[in-house]
Amino acid sequence: MQPLGLINGEIIDINSNVVPMEDRGHQFGDGVYEVTRVYNGKCFALKPHMDRMYRSLRELRIPATYTFGELAEFHERLIQESGITEGGVYLQVTRGIAPRAHNFPENTVPRLTMSIRPIGAGTPLTAIRESGAKIIFISDERWLRCDIKSLNLLGNILGKQKAKETGCFEAVMLRDGLVTEGTSSNFFIVRDGVLWTHPVNNLILKGVTRTIVIEHIAAELGIPVIEKAFDGEFAKGTAEAFLSGTTTEIAPVVSIDGAPVGSGAVGPITRKIQYAYGKLIDLECMR
Amino acid sequence: MQPLGLINGEIIDINSNVVPMEDRGHQFGDGVYEVTRVYNGKCFALKPHMDRMYRSLRELRIPATYTFGELAEFHERLIQESGITEGGVYLQVTRGIAPRAHNFPENTVPRLTMSIRPIGAGTPLTAIRESGAKIIFISDERWLRCDIKSLNLLGNILGKQKAKETGCFEAVMLRDGLVTEGTSSNFFIVRDGVLWTHPVNNLILKGVTRTIVIEHIAAELGIPVIEKAFDGEFAKGTAEAFLSGTTTEIAPVVSIDGAPVGSGAVGPITRKIQYAYGKLIDLECMR
Repeated sequence: MQPLGLINGEIIDINSNVVPMEDRGHQFGDGVYEVTRVYNGKCFALKPHMDRMYRSLRELRIPATYTFGELAEFHERLIQESGITEGGVYLQVTRGIAPRAHNFPENTVPRLTMSIRPIGAGTPLTAIRESGAKIIFISDERWLRCDIKSLNLLGNILGKQKAKETGCFEAVMLRDGLVTEGTSSNFFIVRDGVLWTHPVNNLILKGVTRTIVIEHIAAELGIPVIEKAFDGEFAKGTAEAFLSGTTTEIAPVVSIDGAPVGSGAVGPITRKIQYAYGKLIDLECMR
Repeated sequence: MQPLGLINGEIIDINSNVVPMEDRGHQFGDGVYEVTRVYNGKCFALKPHMDRMYRSLRELRIPATYTFGELAEFHERLIQESGITEGGVYLQVTRGIAPRAHNFPENTVPRLTMSIRPIGAGTPLTAIRESGAKIIFISDERWLRCDIKSLNLLGNILGKQKAKETGCFEAVMLRDGLVTEGTSSNFFIVRDGVLWTHPVNNLILKGVTRTIVIEHIAAELGIPVIEKAFDGEFAKGTAEAFLSGTTTEIAPVVSIDGAPVGSGAVGPITRKIQYAYGKLIDLECMR
């Protein structure tokens, strides 16, 4: 059970120097990434993650150089060789190595780096999923292509750090007064039995967990979903709220900016969705 | 005369692998940079570049670990050991190496990497400075902290690439209809003998060359300066326009979106400013 890296299809020490200073990831954040959760030694929802990765590459016009089959095999190999059964596989592709200039270089090869790290059962996330997360609202200062899962993450970093320093789990962002998403999660509210979340456009990432919640879980449970932007006050006046994400899974939100959400306890619809999400993981990874 | 790299104060092959995959520059674009021009084997305006770098670090709360004296010595060493007398020194500092998580890691050491590359006299820039640049206007999609010279450069990259593909030298960006700056330069217009440019705030980088133009050249030549945002139509109706930047120096703009600026020839005030900038370089580097 040790973290491992992978580059050019070869397993490596995660701490070894494998990137030259003029990799465009290192100098421009010019690349895309994905994180896939591993349960019971199996990847959960790998296909939608890789599909989204290919979309991000297309949007940035970085050529795709590995097939889904090859990427699946690399995930497999990292799991096998690390012995990690509960963890996360990180994958990123940069536009490659070239003398520094803003425009796309010609004749470079995109660079794939991957790694695996364990995610323990005893992390703070376990407690947060059980008893709920405190969050803060902050201003969304990111660029206007948040639909691309790119390496330009400073806005997310600064937001997450602010959350941490105010004793919160996550910062959820507002642009022009409307709630977009968390720094590493999507944000849902429950109002009068209806699920609300920001629609898919250039202002949010189309989360894989978000899609599962809307298309599988809510559909199956018969919970109506409204994909429409709403403001901070609307969110604060809600009965329930939760965050969704690959690592976050379904995390109930019990307070926003220090004020309780609903009764301040985890709500019943959130619990149902959490339970259903757990069942989907069981179905895909536990047998 | 060969490009060289520098890390931890040591000269290295610029192509060697010196960065682990979990450097926060590589995974988040979590760092800052500067480019300083070398003329006649001497750095031009090194102090304001390093001062700005310290400011960028402070804004991102990355600790500064090298003094100005040390950084000046590293610049010197790259020039000496490479034998490059006309070139550019690139410097970047990332938040260091840590297992991937959005919030700031604890107990990591910021990583400084530097490099030097020649800038030839026969580059396209030479011709552009003489006969002028074509530019396009594009929408400014970047984040709201463009005052930080960070490694989150995807908006700049996509804009520069678009310029290149339309046969232009630079893309100048408009936010809410107002002209901000170029993807790697500041933008000035001349109207009725007055210099206009976007004011210094969170929407533009405070260019070192921009400051020299305003505080030294315009002041000395008695040209009034108005630092106020203006729209695209206002810019297109101008007599003269130019770009300023460390590598760009002063580049006249002769067409915007395919239409000539003023007469379509390089204007007299732009030439005066170019000349004055050349004299400042002579004064600092040529003796």
